[in-house]
Amino acid sequence: MNMMVKPTASKLAMVPFVSVDNMMRIVNTIGAAKMIAEIADYIEADFKRWPQFDKTPRVAAHSPDGVIELMPTSDGETYGFKYVNGHPANMARGFQTVTAFGMLARVDNGYPVLLSEMTVLTALRTAATSAMAAKYLAPENARTMAMIGNGAQCEFQALAFKEIIGIETVRLFDIDPVATQKAARNLQSSGLNVVECTSSQQAVAGADIITTCTADKQYATILSDNMVGAGVHINAIGGDCPGKTELHRDILLRSDIFVEYLPQSRIEGEIQQLHKDYPVTELWQVITGEAKGRSSDHQITLFDSVGFATEDFSALRYIRDQLPRNGHFVELDMLADPDDPRDLFGMIERARE
Amino acid sequence: MNMMVKPTASKLAMVPFVSVDNMMRIVNTIGAAKMIAEIADYIEADFKRWPQFDKTPRVAAHSPDGVIELMPTSDGETYGFKYVNGHPANMARGFQTVTAFGMLARVDNGYPVLLSEMTVLTALRTAATSAMAAKYLAPENARTMAMIGNGAQCEFQALAFKEIIGIETVRLFDIDPVATQKAARNLQSSGLNVVECTSSQQAVAGADIITTCTADKQYATILSDNMVGAGVHINAIGGDCPGKTELHRDILLRSDIFVEYLPQSRIEGEIQQLHKDYPVTELWQVITGEAKGRSSDHQITLFDSVGFATEDFSALRYIRDQLPRNGHFVELDMLADPDDPRDLFGMIERARE
Repeated sequence: MNMMVKPTASKLAMVPFVSVDNMMRIVNTIGAAKMIAEIADYIEADFKRWPQFDKTPRVAAHSPDGVIELMPTSDGETYGFKYVNGHPANMARGFQTVTAFGMLARVDNGYPVLLSEMTVLTALRTAATSAMAAKYLAPENARTMAMIGNGAQCEFQALAFKEIIGIETVRLFDIDPVATQKAARNLQSSGLNVVECTSSQQAVAGADIITTCTADKQYATILSDNMVGAGVHINAIGGDCPGKTELHRDILLRSDIFVEYLPQSRIEGEIQQLHKDYPVTELWQVITGEAKGRSSDHQITLFDSVGFATEDFSALRYIRDQLPRNGHFVELDMLADPDDPRDLFGMIERARE
Repeated sequence: MNMMVKPTASKLAMVPFVSVDNMMRIVNTIGAAKMIAEIADYIEADFKRWPQFDKTPRVAAHSPDGVIELMPTSDGETYGFKYVNGHPANMARGFQTVTAFGMLARVDNGYPVLLSEMTVLTALRTAATSAMAAKYLAPENARTMAMIGNGAQCEFQALAFKEIIGIETVRLFDIDPVATQKAARNLQSSGLNVVECTSSQQAVAGADIITTCTADKQYATILSDNMVGAGVHINAIGGDCPGKTELHRDILLRSDIFVEYLPQSRIEGEIQQLHKDYPVTELWQVITGEAKGRSSDHQITLFDSVGFATEDFSALRYIRDQLPRNGHFVELDMLADPDDPRDLFGMIERARE
């Protein structure tokens, strides 16, 4: 194995890289709950300046096994993108359903300034986004959340809603009881009251917030209409690609629906079940005060979340800001940087010597 | 600085990474000319199976200073993309005009299998593509090439055309004589007869092939109509984004025009100067025999090249095949790989211990 960093490579050629190991160090240094809350602040700040961003639906490559996506965005000063896959069958084969990495670059010269793992970071930002949205949409004094789907995202959601919303009790259900046991074990010392349930009906009993987070790549009805009472906030994060939804259509019709970026959500969200003109609200408008969030105790609010590029951008921005503080990164020799930019060929020749 | 690779991270979590330093080792081990020719074979093989590829115009983020692009493609088994910027003003500021990196991943599970610098590799694949196309389009027994624009791509083009086409003489011109001197110096021991010219008119005199490779982000007329005689092949690689062209429109009207991927070339190529229905031929059709390449001695052929995602895919495929042979890579801990794929949270917790 060669040295990663050539001693003679200039500073310009180097890109800070946060590996999975270093990302876990960052999480464990800051603390998962605190880090989620801090990322939520970055996400909220970027939602507040929504019109500044270049927005485009993600670029998806679908295959029978899953999807690979590129999610680019830019605020005019910094460009970012995430590579992410979604392969529902992976879990049974011993792979992660979702893995990801991402990058930030300077818009003015196109040079990357951060490369980071984003499997862990996406888990954090997804939970941060859900809880940040719930600040505007969940009933006041919500204390109990049902968590349907106890996979890789579950504990992050639970921590996020405890830290940001003040949830005290989580009611867990998964069609695989082993997943529920895993989540309950991981949340043991979280300070949450954890209730393991044996049906989704049982899980939603008394819940102020219902989070659905399952990974089937198909139309599934995780929640049926009779399970959703007045006043509840639904945080639906599992329906996130064409043909994949979690909620019965009747629930949508009773709810006020909030999405991240409408052109993408029409394709990927729960609202693919609705007519393309069905009225929904983009979350940023609630955050800036241009639109109403929750306006009554009886209202059912639905955050139909599919994940959007700005959320990854915010999370990467957060990580970049941490680097000088904690040093949990290495520098990768990723960019060719000849003394004379036109002399790429000469640089290769001289490397021979 | 922390260790890059956590000793306990599983094999699944690791992605081979080829740094700039290692890419230069690969080039210097194989030899630049031979490597370009080998990459050309990969590119040609992939052009031959063109219909198998998912093709999409690149996803571009334009700014006043330049462009940042993502170029994804897939052959159904392997997915690849390249990140690349193009910033004409970079050179004057001491940065590369173009820097790039890319990735390959398995389509069946979405896991990355290669991350590589692509600043050097793009230079190689661009030259490889040009010379491969010239096999089908240039006049037989072409021995002299004019090179207008002597920037970072120049020497690679010269080597490619020597190795693949049998060019013996290159006639160099750049508006900046320092660039020409640099290229001439670098090509000293290439075996080519190198002629430094003081005007583009002088450079094209007696040339069988004219390569234009300048970096202005604007409509420029590098070649005017009277400079292009019958029978010449024009290899136009500098006009590669909206509003950036190099050839006078009259030249296009006298030429048979070949492009990589028509929907992208209409936006970015020289043919943005023509009506959207103007007939041009996609190169893959020539390579598979479905369309004619050069058919007469008097014909002017024009390869209006903008660079396409499959070319990067081919080049990355080539690099991936070299790794077991030369070992010039390191493994990056880029993917989270918990023992239980659903237990991402537990993996982070356990990393604390």
